[in-house]
Amino acid sequence: MTAPASVLVIGCGLIGTSTALALREHDVDVHLRDTDPQHLEAAVALQAGTADPIDAPVLVVVAVPPSAVPDTVRAALTEFPRAIVTDVAGVKLPIFAALEGADGRERFVGGHPMAGTEGSGPTAGSARLFEGRSWVIVPGQDSRSDAVQRVTHLAETVGAVPVFLDAAAHDDAVALVSHVPHVMSGLVAGLLNGAPRAHLDLAGPGLRDVTRIAGSGTDLWLDILGHNAAAVRGQLLSLRETLDRVIGALGDEVVVPQLADVLDAGRAGTRRLPGKHGEARADTVSVFVPIADRPGELSRLFADTGQSGVNVEDLRIDHERGRPVGLVEIAVVADGADVLVDALTDRGWPAYR
Amino acid sequence: MTAPASVLVIGCGLIGTSTALALREHDVDVHLRDTDPQHLEAAVALQAGTADPIDAPVLVVVAVPPSAVPDTVRAALTEFPRAIVTDVAGVKLPIFAALEGADGRERFVGGHPMAGTEGSGPTAGSARLFEGRSWVIVPGQDSRSDAVQRVTHLAETVGAVPVFLDAAAHDDAVALVSHVPHVMSGLVAGLLNGAPRAHLDLAGPGLRDVTRIAGSGTDLWLDILGHNAAAVRGQLLSLRETLDRVIGALGDEVVVPQLADVLDAGRAGTRRLPGKHGEARADTVSVFVPIADRPGELSRLFADTGQSGVNVEDLRIDHERGRPVGLVEIAVVADGADVLVDALTDRGWPAYR
Repeated sequence: MTAPASVLVIGCGLIGTSTALALREHDVDVHLRDTDPQHLEAAVALQAGTADPIDAPVLVVVAVPPSAVPDTVRAALTEFPRAIVTDVAGVKLPIFAALEGADGRERFVGGHPMAGTEGSGPTAGSARLFEGRSWVIVPGQDSRSDAVQRVTHLAETVGAVPVFLDAAAHDDAVALVSHVPHVMSGLVAGLLNGAPRAHLDLAGPGLRDVTRIAGSGTDLWLDILGHNAAAVRGQLLSLRETLDRVIGALGDEVVVPQLADVLDAGRAGTRRLPGKHGEARADTVSVFVPIADRPGELSRLFADTGQSGVNVEDLRIDHERGRPVGLVEIAVVADGADVLVDALTDRGWPAYR
Repeated sequence: MTAPASVLVIGCGLIGTSTALALREHDVDVHLRDTDPQHLEAAVALQAGTADPIDAPVLVVVAVPPSAVPDTVRAALTEFPRAIVTDVAGVKLPIFAALEGADGRERFVGGHPMAGTEGSGPTAGSARLFEGRSWVIVPGQDSRSDAVQRVTHLAETVGAVPVFLDAAAHDDAVALVSHVPHVMSGLVAGLLNGAPRAHLDLAGPGLRDVTRIAGSGTDLWLDILGHNAAAVRGQLLSLRETLDRVIGALGDEVVVPQLADVLDAGRAGTRRLPGKHGEARADTVSVFVPIADRPGELSRLFADTGQSGVNVEDLRIDHERGRPVGLVEIAVVADGADVLVDALTDRGWPAYR
């Protein structure tokens, strides 16, 4: 399938504008709409497409907030009786429920690109936002196969990896990998409000990791959680049962086997996460390098790391309190660790594993 | 205070060996003991100190597992009637409780270096393990001031930042910044065991962040949680109340204000965490750069980043599934973002913010 002749993107936020920009790089004729004239103007200024009217788009991408998706999809199916219509909302069951019985619903296929940045609005958009990201494609029971193909092609054109799930599976999956972790991250972060500063000064990278995602915007997350309430609630209830077992095990007499079961299950869960490039996670070893906090130190460290020939699997910087240094953790495959430590030590870095 | 003339380190695991190695770099006369002859031999081979007997150490560092600390401290206070004695265990109230009424307890001061790696045992030890890390110093009610000074000096000698807390505050603080986050990370990770692979394929960096610390060893954590059960239990009970409010808010009718309160509190909590070097967290902007997964790509990226003159505040690598690339996220202060994007674009990188 070649790129569609003309696409209408409705909604010039981060996802809509990024989709439009990515399609423009493949010379697709992109038309834009937004109820907010400033958003539309900004997207046009970014060369994401034209605001000119369009008669017969081959594909309509509805990139409006979740609560506005059903009405916008319905209107698009009516206005363009031959177009395929898709959306980019983060939940799917409520949208299919709202479209039940809609005329032309066989031309609608749900979509959900798993991408985003801290930014929002058209100016945060990027043609490369979807590169290598999953784009979930959610056909309805009535969806035509050419509609599924058209939306699959859209995902591939913008550089994403298509993944096929039905609506219920999609909503469960995003509750598991995104919504429930967000809630739990927020609950841990919420405990910090009551703590004395001296206690927080002991925080290390573990607490930062667990609470990082809780720092993002409340409004967006109210919308997301509200629309996927049933799936999130079910998983939180299951999690609470295990939490109660932990609390029960931490009584005056600690019930070690009960606690061990929960810790073991957590450890096993982390190993189920796909590793680099979706393969099984390679066993890596961390090499630690304290560095001074000056422009260029990281450049020098990475240049020296590159010279060692050892490939970096992962990397973190832990900024240390009380002194102007940071600790860089470089994860490499096990047999590369000694090679890297030796190479960095030779170049004067206080590296250790 | 100059470095002590002679120190006895009891227990040649990661922390004991690292302490010994760091003291050796300051030419302190370090003696070592371990009930495991292989650990002792390994630590001596690493030049962490000598296994020769010692008559009168100035300082004894007890670096044995938490459950063995009270007996070992008691024995050391008796064997060396003029020595200052400290420990490195991750909990403090149970240790002071077990030492109540012990002869010589005025010469004991608790300690807890906030450092560690994935490794364990003497071979994982490093003289630089404590650089820039907090070392909590926990005087008892009877501790002599010269004992507190001696232990403070130990922390400073090995490069750590001394932090003073009483035993109850210490145990609450580590429950908050370490033990409770570990439990919650494990509960989220535990949910992954029941999930189909196709759902896990949607996992992004957020889930990885939240679950990362749950991957570490069960035995160590059983010991840690078991010894700090009361503090951890109290905070988990408080967290469960908030969890119940979230579950309640996610009913058939979503209670938005209740959900908003919890999300807002989480967001506020993340902002209480000390940022770089213990200062308030600077507002940073992320620049994203997709890179090919080949040795040397990161080196080249960082060399180019260094040339831009923009200082890197933080950095993450998100490995993408389905294709041999990774997405590097470089956090810089807000006014550096455009400078960096321009500099990287000029050098051929597909950078965006």
